[in-house]
Amino acid sequence: MRPILFDLNNSGDLFTGLCHELNAEAGQLNRRHFPDGESYLQVVSPVSGRSAVVLCSLNRPDEKLLPLIFLAETLKELGAGQVILVAPYLAYMRQDHRFNPGECVSSVHFARLISQSFDALVTVDPHLHRYHSLDQIYFIPSAVVASAEPVARWIQQQVYRPLLIGPDSESEQWVAQVAALAGAPCEVLEKQRHGDRSVTVSVPHPERYKGHTPVLLDDIISSGRTLLETLNHLQQAGMPPAVCIASHALFDDTVFRELQQRTQQLITCNTVSHPSNAIDLSALLADAVQRFLTR
Amino acid sequence: MRPILFDLNNSGDLFTGLCHELNAEAGQLNRRHFPDGESYLQVVSPVSGRSAVVLCSLNRPDEKLLPLIFLAETLKELGAGQVILVAPYLAYMRQDHRFNPGECVSSVHFARLISQSFDALVTVDPHLHRYHSLDQIYFIPSAVVASAEPVARWIQQQVYRPLLIGPDSESEQWVAQVAALAGAPCEVLEKQRHGDRSVTVSVPHPERYKGHTPVLLDDIISSGRTLLETLNHLQQAGMPPAVCIASHALFDDTVFRELQQRTQQLITCNTVSHPSNAIDLSALLADAVQRFLTR
Repeated sequence: MRPILFDLNNSGDLFTGLCHELNAEAGQLNRRHFPDGESYLQVVSPVSGRSAVVLCSLNRPDEKLLPLIFLAETLKELGAGQVILVAPYLAYMRQDHRFNPGECVSSVHFARLISQSFDALVTVDPHLHRYHSLDQIYFIPSAVVASAEPVARWIQQQVYRPLLIGPDSESEQWVAQVAALAGAPCEVLEKQRHGDRSVTVSVPHPERYKGHTPVLLDDIISSGRTLLETLNHLQQAGMPPAVCIASHALFDDTVFRELQQRTQQLITCNTVSHPSNAIDLSALLADAVQRFLTR
Repeated sequence: MRPILFDLNNSGDLFTGLCHELNAEAGQLNRRHFPDGESYLQVVSPVSGRSAVVLCSLNRPDEKLLPLIFLAETLKELGAGQVILVAPYLAYMRQDHRFNPGECVSSVHFARLISQSFDALVTVDPHLHRYHSLDQIYFIPSAVVASAEPVARWIQQQVYRPLLIGPDSESEQWVAQVAALAGAPCEVLEKQRHGDRSVTVSVPHPERYKGHTPVLLDDIISSGRTLLETLNHLQQAGMPPAVCIASHALFDDTVFRELQQRTQQLITCNTVSHPSNAIDLSALLADAVQRFLTR
């Protein structure tokens, strides 16, 4: 039987692409809220004996978790053979340690809740810091899709003489990998973070790369502070406007407009549905799902 | 050691009242959101070896669940001896049956998530339909506080010649109980529900109760449709403006203003913090918590 794919949060083209790549049926849901804010959910398509795939990017995770668990549990009750979560953006990877006394190590608890309800997890470039692998917190099998190759391909096709720039040391590994795949030079800046929203960035040495197009890479853009700071420094150093590329578009409209004004182009992978999406990951995600699908 | 009480969602006077009644310390939390919408939580007060009580009314439950689970799990990790949830309003009691194929029976899954993280549950007038007791879905001990007595006392003290009116047959048991405690007559109307927001109500026979003040009782007010329909019918039947009393104030400001214009007075129990709160349940809630507290 063909697998059936459910789109929990308007994933846009990615849903259509995944259905196509997996030769999956587009599952029908009824969703609404009761007047008091509770979620109502009904699985309309038959799922008994079928493999079910739930597509739900986990930006703004707090409001999404309960409907997501409801859907997974209902699919199992209705006889789905397996329930696979495709969360192109995976939340709660940040708080992976009790940095200060009394802090919630939310990554562990979030992973437990997801692991209880799903049989497998597929995601894109999760923000691993201290964890070496998702297996340290998720007790279901997981597959990680790397955006490096499609990002590198996009750069090769679209950017003249790219100079890849990573905004901080955290991004170094990823940026170096994309640079190698794209056959382009790269520079990684030093970032100092003061709280969530305040950041200072070291100045690069642009004189070495006259005539190159700076391409700023980051895995996640949310507040946009890091990128805006970096763009300031590149501008002060006399570099042309940069192309910005991120895996996960978590920014709001204000940040988006500001970044658009300050860049030559701002593009993202389609892990979170957004007008800036330009790099399609549906084929890679489908490959990862395929490995978990039982016949 | 004194128990420690945490207020997860600005419970207002109820938190102060509960602290006082339980001789509990007011626990300190740091809470904020990261720019991408994830919750940050830090338990500031020492909790090791203490009984912890979490006060969190569960209106708008989807956005509250994850921080609630984070808090309970963190309290346990930090060595709290027990973690008791006081949810004066308990969510997801409505969908207690698969009425149509494929529907999520959300009450069961919500109850499981709460039961996993807490040691005991205290609530007020849960909206039990087909369930006889919370024990059918919650696998932790629970205590139910009845608002009937304080509501009846308020009516006796504040309303001249009350005629208690229940808007539908679901409310019959509760209204009859309050009427008996208040020593007042009561009438229960017949309600027909067409979807969530459309309701028709039978007309009562007000001629029997000339000179009485109609007192409309309902356990939950959310959209306010039922009450407004009932108020229309009472008005058409020539009755004076009613006093309205609800256990749980789930309505928004628009509904509140409309109800205020159409009633003599609109008051609620303080299960959900709201300007209409007039009946304090902190003493009864404290009694229920006390039964679970280990020394």
